Amino acid sequence: MLIGAADVLGTQAVIRAVNPATNQTLAPDFPGGTAADVARASELADEAFHVYRQTSPEDRATFLERIAANIEALGDTLINRASEESGLPLARLQGERGRTAGQLRLFARELRAGRWADVRINGALPERQPLPRADLRLEYIPVGPVVVFGASNFPLAFSVAGGDTASALAAGCPVIVKAHSAHPGTSELVGRAVRAAVQECGLPEGVFSLLFGSGSEVGQTLVKHPAIKAVGFTGSRNGGVALMKTAAARPEPIPVYAEMSSINPVFLLPGALTQRAQALGAGFVQSLTMGAGQFCTNPGLIIALRSPELDTFLESARQAVEQAASATMLTPGIHGAYESGVAQLTAHPAIQTLARGQRNPSASNQCQAALFKTGAADFLKDPHALGVEVFGASSLVIECDDEAQVFALIQHLEGQLTATLWLDADKDADLARRLISRLALKVGRILANGFPTGVEVCDAMVHGGPFPATSDPRSTSVGTAAMLRFLRPVSYQDIPDALLPPALQRANPWKLPRLED
Amino acid sequence: MLIGAADVLGTQAVIRAVNPATNQTLAPDFPGGTAADVARASELADEAFHVYRQTSPEDRATFLERIAANIEALGDTLINRASEESGLPLARLQGERGRTAGQLRLFARELRAGRWADVRINGALPERQPLPRADLRLEYIPVGPVVVFGASNFPLAFSVAGGDTASALAAGCPVIVKAHSAHPGTSELVGRAVRAAVQECGLPEGVFSLLFGSGSEVGQTLVKHPAIKAVGFTGSRNGGVALMKTAAARPEPIPVYAEMSSINPVFLLPGALTQRAQALGAGFVQSLTMGAGQFCTNPGLIIALRSPELDTFLESARQAVEQAASATMLTPGIHGAYESGVAQLTAHPAIQTLARGQRNPSASNQCQAALFKTGAADFLKDPHALGVEVFGASSLVIECDDEAQVFALIQHLEGQLTATLWLDADKDADLARRLISRLALKVGRILANGFPTGVEVCDAMVHGGPFPATSDPRSTSVGTAAMLRFLRPVSYQDIPDALLPPALQRANPWKLPRLED
Repeated sequence: MLIGAADVLGTQAVIRAVNPATNQTLAPDFPGGTAADVARASELADEAFHVYRQTSPEDRATFLERIAANIEALGDTLINRASEESGLPLARLQGERGRTAGQLRLFARELRAGRWADVRINGALPERQPLPRADLRLEYIPVGPVVVFGASNFPLAFSVAGGDTASALAAGCPVIVKAHSAHPGTSELVGRAVRAAVQECGLPEGVFSLLFGSGSEVGQTLVKHPAIKAVGFTGSRNGGVALMKTAAARPEPIPVYAEMSSINPVFLLPGALTQRAQALGAGFVQSLTMGAGQFCTNPGLIIALRSPELDTFLESARQAVEQAASATMLTPGIHGAYESGVAQLTAHPAIQTLARGQRNPSASNQCQAALFKTGAADFLKDPHALGVEVFGASSLVIECDDEAQVFALIQHLEGQLTATLWLDADKDADLARRLISRLALKVGRILANGFPTGVEVCDAMVHGGPFPATSDPRSTSVGTAAMLRFLRPVSYQDIPDALLPPALQRANPWKLPRLED
Repeated sequence: MLIGAADVLGTQAVIRAVNPATNQTLAPDFPGGTAADVARASELADEAFHVYRQTSPEDRATFLERIAANIEALGDTLINRASEESGLPLARLQGERGRTAGQLRLFARELRAGRWADVRINGALPERQPLPRADLRLEYIPVGPVVVFGASNFPLAFSVAGGDTASALAAGCPVIVKAHSAHPGTSELVGRAVRAAVQECGLPEGVFSLLFGSGSEVGQTLVKHPAIKAVGFTGSRNGGVALMKTAAARPEPIPVYAEMSSINPVFLLPGALTQRAQALGAGFVQSLTMGAGQFCTNPGLIIALRSPELDTFLESARQAVEQAASATMLTPGIHGAYESGVAQLTAHPAIQTLARGQRNPSASNQCQAALFKTGAADFLKDPHALGVEVFGASSLVIECDDEAQVFALIQHLEGQLTATLWLDADKDADLARRLISRLALKVGRILANGFPTGVEVCDAMVHGGPFPATSDPRSTSVGTAAMLRFLRPVSYQDIPDALLPPALQRANPWKLPRLED
């Protein structure tokens, strides 16, 4: 573990990474931390916060850029270890590394642009009647130390130096990462890159720590520590809900940003099906099986009106699934859960199995894609069992008799990260408009004529949505708006200029954009 | 009750307003609502939401302005009833009416300015390598129907058409108000003014409802209803925490914005005391006793270094308290709680009673101001008992031996709405700078050389702070930023222009400010 500047060998139950393609254990052992390790990391973070939160946007931008460079400097060592621990192909991990570094640099740009501070100034009006107005100045400041839980499915971009860490550090919050136990070696490599940046930038050591723990104890203890002021999490619904409960039960409740569960409905509209049912079927299966379907935004539900064109789509998708090569899943546990979820759908009397992908008996933990079908009336009889997320390449097609059934399905859907519409802009306009209007209340992102599995890191992205997609629909965990999760407003009234924080001083030394009266 | 367009007479336990100055009951009776009434109001709000959320900023601004005009048109009828129900003087209520109408008009201006929508556009980059970028457009949309709990101490500005209602309606959320049982007649008058505005503006009836209920059942049932998506509350810590628990335990947890408990520390710095100890003592008591001390921002704690100048301040404050006239408190219950809180402090062995205000045996429920003193070491032995909020004109002075004790006190303070520094900009600069840096982590607003009891409604105000001051330190309940509590981001990807919401269309029909690449 990396607790501030110190290398600390844990003393608790050991984590061993496993190569999921071979089920072979990877050296070394990573023993877990104790409550004392949690307390030490939290106290260091609390100390560091008083210094780190007052660094300039430029200093923090330089720090993020240094982290990016240090991660890139790890070269193939990082990519190879991440591939061994996750079963993900090298090319995918190279792309993910680019995304991780690009994300850090995007937050550096955002820090310099300064919109995040949302500075608002209402100058004094001493002559106002019946009462004068004081000088009031508002800035957003960081909430305090943040705990980040790394995700299994993006060992770089949503893990130790992923989006949660980058946005919290950008906001001015020290970060303690609880490493995901599926990729401890990758976590250590990236953790050392972050720590080196802390030291190279002359920041207090408590700005970053990395802890290991085999069960939920280290994580739960972290979330309970009074120094911790917010939590970022990407993972299962059970895991996220457990953290939400712990955070709400603290003497001082704190916000949890958990990105958890989504089945990402895809609506095939009649005009689009008429035009290109066959191509759509093939494109859909490509999105479904990419990365063994291990994406939060994997299209797990297809909703369409019954028609001959839908049959063409289904036949095209069926063939594509049957030809789809198997792929190694991230961990034996994830593979087991996938098999169990697929088995439940297969056994359900109201569900027809349309296709399974290729088997590969020579490798372990293989995802053999699955495509299912049911009718809307059957789905609505048991929406909780049939609408559950099966993490991996599994999708359920729901055939509807009429538009009323489509809207009834939406009504019964839980909150989602995304909804997708395949549409013809002219012929489907009326139905699409009504769908978009309803779907906006259920999801964080609506897209047309594409697949939801790509999540662009930019200003206008929302990777969020109503519960259980996330714990807080007012937030996004991807894109520059992710920083806003870790900021809170403070107002300064009639404070002498020399005593104001730099963002609010009359001379505006940080050159932030400001709303003045 | 007003449930959409219908007048509904409740069937449950009756609420009767009481004139606190005389303890006389005021007609008429207000029988409470049932679970069916809650369900009806919630369903109407849900239906109305689909229409109301798509109204233009201009339409919502006009609606808010109409509410303001309708409230003003109630004239003396409103002021007289509010005074009878609250014991507050007419002049204070006239000022509060101005604040309420001004607040509605401020949100109308903010709607037209359009910053709240935070529109962000990243245009398509079809030629980008290695992957093209889709067209991405983000806007903030309303979260859904909101329940507002009126506060006792501002029967106009924080009640039926107060800051929570105004900001939620501005955001595009229908509002159901649970009326405060202390001023049901005032609530009905204002509720009818809001409902008339709904009708005059041709909005769906479910945009606004007003319910009565004598206990916590109507409120709890409202917060549990699946159509409700957020809660605004101003009141006691126990009441707010109960709502937080209910909201967190829902199948779909929802945000609660509760403004609860704050003792608003005031720091008297040596330079300021040297200059004007006597005037400060008098000014402080004026702030302490204003409105019988029934403000969230009432200065309940004075912290200073032991010195002869502090003695001068204390003597001045002592005299001012002893001369302070008594004032009628809002309700017999609030008066009882005040008496009990003051009695506990009086009986505490570590506390010295410096002064009590004038008695007035001829009126009921009189607040007789109280000023107490203790030492920092004693306070730190029992910070929870001594740091508790006594709602009303009660304040505790803590004498410190040195600066270390001052910072130890800050460390032990819970989250606060405000902290105040009386300082000399030159002589106290060093200590003030260190205090401001620490206090920013504990409070929502820091002010110098004033008293915290005035809360300006403007862009740069924060009426919020870490728990237990509020349930969510990322928010403010006063000022234009209060709207942000009821909005969430949604991203649109590659949606044809004609199908986009107006805020995101290429022609920008609502003329909103937009961040474009």
